[in-house]
Amino acid sequence: MKDITLKEIATKLGISITTVSKALKNYPDVSAKTKKAVIDLAQTLHYTPNSFAVNLRTKESKTIGLIIPEVVHHFFSNVVNAIIDEAEKNGYLVIILQSNESLELEKKQVELLINKRVDGIIMSLSNESNNDDHIKEIISRNIPFVMFDKINKLTTCSKVIIDDQKAAFNAVQHLIDTGCKRIVHIRGPLNPQNSIDRYIGYKKALEKNHIPFDAKLVYTCEKVTFEEGFDFARQIIKEHPDVDGIFAITDLVAVGVLTYFNDNDIKIPEQVAIIGFSNWFMSQVLTPKLSSVEQPSHEMGVQSFTLLLEEMICHKEGLHYTPRTVELQTCNIIRESTVRP
Amino acid sequence: MKDITLKEIATKLGISITTVSKALKNYPDVSAKTKKAVIDLAQTLHYTPNSFAVNLRTKESKTIGLIIPEVVHHFFSNVVNAIIDEAEKNGYLVIILQSNESLELEKKQVELLINKRVDGIIMSLSNESNNDDHIKEIISRNIPFVMFDKINKLTTCSKVIIDDQKAAFNAVQHLIDTGCKRIVHIRGPLNPQNSIDRYIGYKKALEKNHIPFDAKLVYTCEKVTFEEGFDFARQIIKEHPDVDGIFAITDLVAVGVLTYFNDNDIKIPEQVAIIGFSNWFMSQVLTPKLSSVEQPSHEMGVQSFTLLLEEMICHKEGLHYTPRTVELQTCNIIRESTVRP
Repeated sequence: MKDITLKEIATKLGISITTVSKALKNYPDVSAKTKKAVIDLAQTLHYTPNSFAVNLRTKESKTIGLIIPEVVHHFFSNVVNAIIDEAEKNGYLVIILQSNESLELEKKQVELLINKRVDGIIMSLSNESNNDDHIKEIISRNIPFVMFDKINKLTTCSKVIIDDQKAAFNAVQHLIDTGCKRIVHIRGPLNPQNSIDRYIGYKKALEKNHIPFDAKLVYTCEKVTFEEGFDFARQIIKEHPDVDGIFAITDLVAVGVLTYFNDNDIKIPEQVAIIGFSNWFMSQVLTPKLSSVEQPSHEMGVQSFTLLLEEMICHKEGLHYTPRTVELQTCNIIRESTVRP
Repeated sequence: MKDITLKEIATKLGISITTVSKALKNYPDVSAKTKKAVIDLAQTLHYTPNSFAVNLRTKESKTIGLIIPEVVHHFFSNVVNAIIDEAEKNGYLVIILQSNESLELEKKQVELLINKRVDGIIMSLSNESNNDDHIKEIISRNIPFVMFDKINKLTTCSKVIIDDQKAAFNAVQHLIDTGCKRIVHIRGPLNPQNSIDRYIGYKKALEKNHIPFDAKLVYTCEKVTFEEGFDFARQIIKEHPDVDGIFAITDLVAVGVLTYFNDNDIKIPEQVAIIGFSNWFMSQVLTPKLSSVEQPSHEMGVQSFTLLLEEMICHKEGLHYTPRTVELQTCNIIRESTVRP
């Protein structure tokens, strides 16, 4: 079906395009009779305003872009859920792209969103990404921009974060409080800021409790998967049979460890206690139930959109905007995998 | 930063807008020297073509809309993942909306996507939705349209489905093969087609095996949640202590049942065998590991986009398109929750 234009409605009714336009916008200087005729015909013909023309006039797309590493992920899907709902409540649509942890793909996606003239961009960096040219391009173009969770500290933009160092410190302190003395950290890749900060938190907790740091007890994920957790569990038991506690970068990896231990009759927490991060849904239904760090994913989505909206409003009105950082609270969720009888 | 126009580039270089436009499109009738000057200046000034103007000219938005019940969901997040990736490979961006199982919200979202002039729409219906006016509106406007998983049989459009009756039949047949005689079905809501079909499959399997159908053994979810599964498990054991098998509409509900049984020392599968549907990731890491029906979510996303692309291409070229239905294969994934020692 062909799109109906104001001109066609005007021609059919024998009135001017201006009158049709005014009638549809309910201007007072058009008679009620004309308004009714225009609206009736517009409905009959399925007229809808051409959003491309509206965009060209208002310079607003009422669309934002969201780039995340992956949508099939407990934490990110919860953030996406919150952003879509908040955006919709405020009249915005959300284009979602997945970097699949690739810097190259992420660069291409930023370019697509810039060309699409989205009104703003929300982003959580891929593992390979940093303060790269594509991030600088968003900033230099003055496009409203918010980073969450996987951020770069040097970029001047609004951020929604948690204190990863403190959260990791508290998780490891909990392991120590339950009696663990040889604690492994299965860390994330070397580049992402949150992975670095959790590693620092682990080291600080050891230091404060006078437990010597042993670099051999740190295992590094490349892809942060269930399979890596499963494989590291086998390695850990072989290389360090005296290990009595494990702090994993995220629950998915911790679940890999737990599965290997269950399959091989290694008692959790009697022999090894495990704590994860992000409190994935499945952690509460495993045997034993997995302890974790609660990371407020939904709230992170809500706050990210709220900051973006603030900046988009300032941008539209030509006002200066000073980026803000919102830090959300975390806490330990203690379950069976760390509670020694 | 203000958007740069072709006119500004033309003025700065003292050439015509047409020449600038031709230079950027690499037309042969512009000299190499002029081309270089235009491209250099365009890069310096961060020129990008105004996509609104391009859209107005081409009548294409290179954007599609996707409406799903919810993104925080093993099955749907996998479909979304596949659609985003396929769309991107083909130069399309995806706007994602969640109906949250509400017909009212779904209607509003269809209207938003129509007004946005997306090039096509992919949709899985909410539990409340049917062959309603908003679906008819998409069809009457001749907007390329694909439904997947939760479809309406009466709507004339492309569809990507599984044979829910057959898949459910096979799941229940498996329970019977392992010795179950009193089998509960925890079904989905009354309206969605896939929930009706799985229920019919359950009944047919009983009938074929000469097991009398007992309406009291059918429990109906309203929201299809973990909590409903947990609560129904308590009810089932109280009301029908002789039940020896449960077929649940989806793994999330089955996991609720499994968790209640584990917490209350009801042996799976010795006392009650359980099989779910959709093969969620967590099902393989539970104790006992949960049997399920494999539903090819990723392939469903790929096929949905492929059908939409076919129709969008025909639409653009003014050709007639005959909708197609693609049916994907399912199979039982047998794990510990149904294998009696």
